[in-house]
Amino acid sequence: MRVTTKIDRPNPELVAQLGEYSSATIHEAQGRLGALSSTIKPVDRNMSCCGPAFTVSCAPRDNIMLQVAIAHARPGDVIVVSAGEYAEAGSFGDVLANACQAKGIAGLVTDTGVRDTQELRRLGFPVFSYSVSIKGTVKETVGPLNEPVLIGGEIVRPGDVVRGDADGIVVVRREDLAEAIRKSREREEAEAGYIAAYRSGRSVIEVSGLAAKLEAKGLILEE
Amino acid sequence: MRVTTKIDRPNPELVAQLGEYSSATIHEAQGRLGALSSTIKPVDRNMSCCGPAFTVSCAPRDNIMLQVAIAHARPGDVIVVSAGEYAEAGSFGDVLANACQAKGIAGLVTDTGVRDTQELRRLGFPVFSYSVSIKGTVKETVGPLNEPVLIGGEIVRPGDVVRGDADGIVVVRREDLAEAIRKSREREEAEAGYIAAYRSGRSVIEVSGLAAKLEAKGLILEE
Amino acid sequence: MRVTTKIDRPNPELVAQLGEYSSATIHEAQGRLGALSSTIKPVDRNMSCCGPAFTVSCAPRDNIMLQVAIAHARPGDVIVVSAGEYAEAGSFGDVLANACQAKGIAGLVTDTGVRDTQELRRLGFPVFSYSVSIKGTVKETVGPLNEPVLIGGEIVRPGDVVRGDADGIVVVRREDLAEAIRKSREREEAEAGYIAAYRSGRSVIEVSGLAAKLEAKGLILEE
Amino acid sequence: MRVTTKIDRPNPELVAQLGEYSSATIHEAQGRLGALSSTIKPVDRNMSCCGPAFTVSCAPRDNIMLQVAIAHARPGDVIVVSAGEYAEAGSFGDVLANACQAKGIAGLVTDTGVRDTQELRRLGFPVFSYSVSIKGTVKETVGPLNEPVLIGGEIVRPGDVVRGDADGIVVVRREDLAEAIRKSREREEAEAGYIAAYRSGRSVIEVSGLAAKLEAKGLILEE
Amino acid sequence: MRVTTKIDRPNPELVAQLGEYSSATIHEAQGRLGALSSTIKPVDRNMSCCGPAFTVSCAPRDNIMLQVAIAHARPGDVIVVSAGEYAEAGSFGDVLANACQAKGIAGLVTDTGVRDTQELRRLGFPVFSYSVSIKGTVKETVGPLNEPVLIGGEIVRPGDVVRGDADGIVVVRREDLAEAIRKSREREEAEAGYIAAYRSGRSVIEVSGLAAKLEAKGLILEE
Amino acid sequence: MRVTTKIDRPNPELVAQLGEYSSATIHEAQGRLGALSSTIKPVDRNMSCCGPAFTVSCAPRDNIMLQVAIAHARPGDVIVVSAGEYAEAGSFGDVLANACQAKGIAGLVTDTGVRDTQELRRLGFPVFSYSVSIKGTVKETVGPLNEPVLIGGEIVRPGDVVRGDADGIVVVRREDLAEAIRKSREREEAEAGYIAAYRSGRSVIEVSGLAAKLEAKGLILEE
Repeated sequence: MRVTTKIDRPNPELVAQLGEYSSATIHEAQGRLGALSSTIKPVDRNMSCCGPAFTVSCAPRDNIMLQVAIAHARPGDVIVVSAGEYAEAGSFGDVLANACQAKGIAGLVTDTGVRDTQELRRLGFPVFSYSVSIKGTVKETVGPLNEPVLIGGEIVRPGDVVRGDADGIVVVRREDLAEAIRKSREREEAEAGYIAAYRSGRSVIEVSGLAAKLEAKGLILEE
Repeated sequence: MRVTTKIDRPNPELVAQLGEYSSATIHEAQGRLGALSSTIKPVDRNMSCCGPAFTVSCAPRDNIMLQVAIAHARPGDVIVVSAGEYAEAGSFGDVLANACQAKGIAGLVTDTGVRDTQELRRLGFPVFSYSVSIKGTVKETVGPLNEPVLIGGEIVRPGDVVRGDADGIVVVRREDLAEAIRKSREREEAEAGYIAAYRSGRSVIEVSGLAAKLEAKGLILEE
Repeated sequence: MRVTTKIDRPNPELVAQLGEYSSATIHEAQGRLGALSSTIKPVDRNMSCCGPAFTVSCAPRDNIMLQVAIAHARPGDVIVVSAGEYAEAGSFGDVLANACQAKGIAGLVTDTGVRDTQELRRLGFPVFSYSVSIKGTVKETVGPLNEPVLIGGEIVRPGDVVRGDADGIVVVRREDLAEAIRKSREREEAEAGYIAAYRSGRSVIEVSGLAAKLEAKGLILEE
Repeated sequence: MRVTTKIDRPNPELVAQLGEYSSATIHEAQGRLGALSSTIKPVDRNMSCCGPAFTVSCAPRDNIMLQVAIAHARPGDVIVVSAGEYAEAGSFGDVLANACQAKGIAGLVTDTGVRDTQELRRLGFPVFSYSVSIKGTVKETVGPLNEPVLIGGEIVRPGDVVRGDADGIVVVRREDLAEAIRKSREREEAEAGYIAAYRSGRSVIEVSGLAAKLEAKGLILEE
Repeated sequence: MRVTTKIDRPNPELVAQLGEYSSATIHEAQGRLGALSSTIKPVDRNMSCCGPAFTVSCAPRDNIMLQVAIAHARPGDVIVVSAGEYAEAGSFGDVLANACQAKGIAGLVTDTGVRDTQELRRLGFPVFSYSVSIKGTVKETVGPLNEPVLIGGEIVRPGDVVRGDADGIVVVRREDLAEAIRKSREREEAEAGYIAAYRSGRSVIEVSGLAAKLEAKGLILEE
Repeated sequence: MRVTTKIDRPNPELVAQLGEYSSATIHEAQGRLGALSSTIKPVDRNMSCCGPAFTVSCAPRDNIMLQVAIAHARPGDVIVVSAGEYAEAGSFGDVLANACQAKGIAGLVTDTGVRDTQELRRLGFPVFSYSVSIKGTVKETVGPLNEPVLIGGEIVRPGDVVRGDADGIVVVRREDLAEAIRKSREREEAEAGYIAAYRSGRSVIEVSGLAAKLEAKGLILEE
């Protein structure tokens, strides 16, 4: 089995710019695409990451390929692990988190479990997982590295940008990065306008211009 | 479709008094009735609310009627959204939370998802939801406002009082409000007595008077 | 129905020594055995306990036997409740937590729900549960005390040692206690070595000696 | 606790007429209301029933009130049991099915489990349940009879008409019975027309008149 | 790793006698013990088996030890596989079913998935599984044979008797076999009496003698 | 929104050849790739289909695009609907099944619900779904046609071949069709050899050549 450790990474400056927007804003900005399932959550709500995906497929309850991924990922990468939505395995913990942090890896997203969560918090290494489990894994099955993976109902390709925060995770295609940043900025500005209008006492229906739509749909409000 | 924005609200002083008791105490006090399913949880364990229900039914993945509800709810109301226990939609976030807060709305309870949870915490607006999801919603389907709704396995009628805290949510019928307060107070006093007795070293079986019941049921303890 | 309140407890000094290791380390050290399902979680991530199991079986939605257990458990014990993985019942709250704390009980592990979670945090009494629910329980059905119970997919016998922390719960057979401590210590020392190696810049593959294994399995890395 | 065995039943002839339409047709005909959750299924796909609801609330794992219901239901009634969506209990089996059949009861709908399913098939007594489980129940807790119950996310009131078949269950309010029959008939006739049109080779879009709507929504089809 | 292929089997005549009673009857007769979770179901409702358990533990998605079990089980045995409630693996299909049938193995019970279900039906080999999945398994991890296993929330020891039918699976301890048969016979006779009484028109409450109990619990029936 | 009704279909003769093998055999033959999740099941175990995918994305609870797909699919196509794993919607029933059958469409695979299942059986139109639900859908949201869709955790592209039977569904990339057929044939021949060997009394371990592997892994069998 031949695998590659080489991926095309996007411009780091653009990655940093994308990281200024929340996962929800980016998801909305790029036309409601790219959100991973809500079943993958940050270990701690203060965790946040943004970086190019270094993807790996593991067999359920097996982390040998995750170790290969950690050995070959570059500073700034987010390791994305597809392992079959298996809850009862803790495939990553404080020992490997130290290895990641020493290398400058930006975060880990996995659809299986992790452990040593208090130590992960203390280290401040961002981890997004499907579960927390103390059950260890084996190191038996080799598998694909840096192939497109399925995780949380979305495809993540190596080099796509993965943005995670308290609310969840969104993936942005590498080629759509500049556009996603531009639209996220526009959306954030628009939202600031909405909030200012609401704070000044204007009605939701008025501000969002929904009155005509509601009338067209036949809604009649009575007091 | 005709809907009404008018509901009969209970005495605000009584609502405030009910809010001094926990959801668990109230549930127990009114005869173990009115608890919503444990699948609806506060976004943050410090969130807490108590107010008359302003109810709305949304189609899954659609928040147009929620916007109508926000526009017409009154200060102190809790907006209660029935949307079909759909996890993968974030139908409410920081923008609408600002609108709610500007109007003095007391909280939001929903059986679908929300997003911008860190900002919700910062704002301190109490939100109870079925999930956290970054996926946006459409604004297409009109539906009932201030009709009785099913949420978390319970019926909530407009003007019923909804009390939520770290443990969950309980609904008190508008007409039972005074009685629920009285019994909650009694229960809290009784519990204080139990706790004092336990702290003074007395046995659980002795304090709760279970010895006779256990004997009647044929339990024989051996050492 | 005859039940016993008497159990053989392990050496308290050994129990204290085991409590210095995390649940994940112990689980790994004893050959990946004894982990309860990840569906049983601490009420708060700072909660932690270690002690001999005082076991009890409750009918779903019934806590009469739990009260018997609290009355007869000894200081340092962890009460382990098997109640059928029933989410919608809060069988334990602040009143009984005060009773436990007054007696010096070390913690509670249950596969049903609990309530009054903010007060449990304030008290600092360690509780691990399947759910949080405000729904009260009845006191009707007597059942076994200090028989082996099934909980989280594992058997826990009275006097076995139960160790819980932020990541989950592991059970150590009473007769394996000394061995589990010894192996946990070895493992922790080995892990400290790994972490130091990673922090000094050495590769995961090199440190864990996986290169030969990967080669034997036919993995070819390309750049 | 006072309970009533008396309910207002609808006209049996209308009940029989409703039973000629499928649960899906009726649900659609009455404006997409009244469908119980898809988690409640017939024991066998050939089972079918239609009758006024004789409602009963049971504690999870307890069937004493179900026995009371069977004793007092009338020929043609459908017994509707709300027991908390508890999967691991078999609260009804061949013995009670014989009792039901001897009395001419029309069927049973429950949100807990049943057993003796092969014998239920042989008897041909229609049973709709949340699960199949061999685990027996206790007879300890009295509860409401012929009060409105929550089951499958819907409210069923005594005397409402419950229609179940291979696809699921729908409830029709007693006062809406004639209207539901009329609209079901209209819908069935319309559907027969659609099917004839499709069979004659006409396109779905043409027959359902969706072309204008699709155009208005901006859909452009390319070949 | 040393494993044993030798187990103490109960008297085959007693096993055959037990097989005359349904899983539900046996479960009830032995005091409501030994029922596996309802999540493990027969591939076909006409499948039925009864035999001593030949137990094996497999890693999720790995069937190497199942092959060892098939090679060493004896005619009449039921192979019981504990594999971690993993749905997305088909660890057994028509090829191995032929091997089992050629050896006279009585059935297979597993908490992971199986495949080739139509061929299993055609062969008439009884299989009880947690899921149906086409996904193949690896053959990598050796594990215990003929140790007590956890499956469906129950412990099954080698040589215990496993009885499965349309409703589910019950395990009878080897030493309790004669007693379970005796009590199952008594129960079946009692049930025949109940059914005859119901068929002759007597009331459920009267026949089961519940009237006094209901009165003691304070239930008052009104018409 | 521009969508295309045109797809590149594979050679129909090859499609027919692939349809001679079971989904499990094909999945195994193409290296354990392409299996959809086991949560998508045939409405009836006798249903079976094989054809090029005509893909469509629907919003949850909305079937307008499914109607477009039916209008434009060609004889032999399998319509593949991605609708967000939403259980509580019946987006397809007997009326549309008649439309499909009139056009010679080969089957339907969907990750939401369907209804009229008895009539679907009577018609013999193969339908694979995530659930059975009587709840109707709206016709509001336009969306992609013949774009790659995610369903059951796999990507299906227009023109890929979808094979479904009693055990589940597998997708074969259009370009891999000939290879999948060749390897399926080889596998079926190998399996026939295994079955003959087992039927003649040879051991599973011997036939599958596992003895050396087990020895290498250190398994020692004792009697």
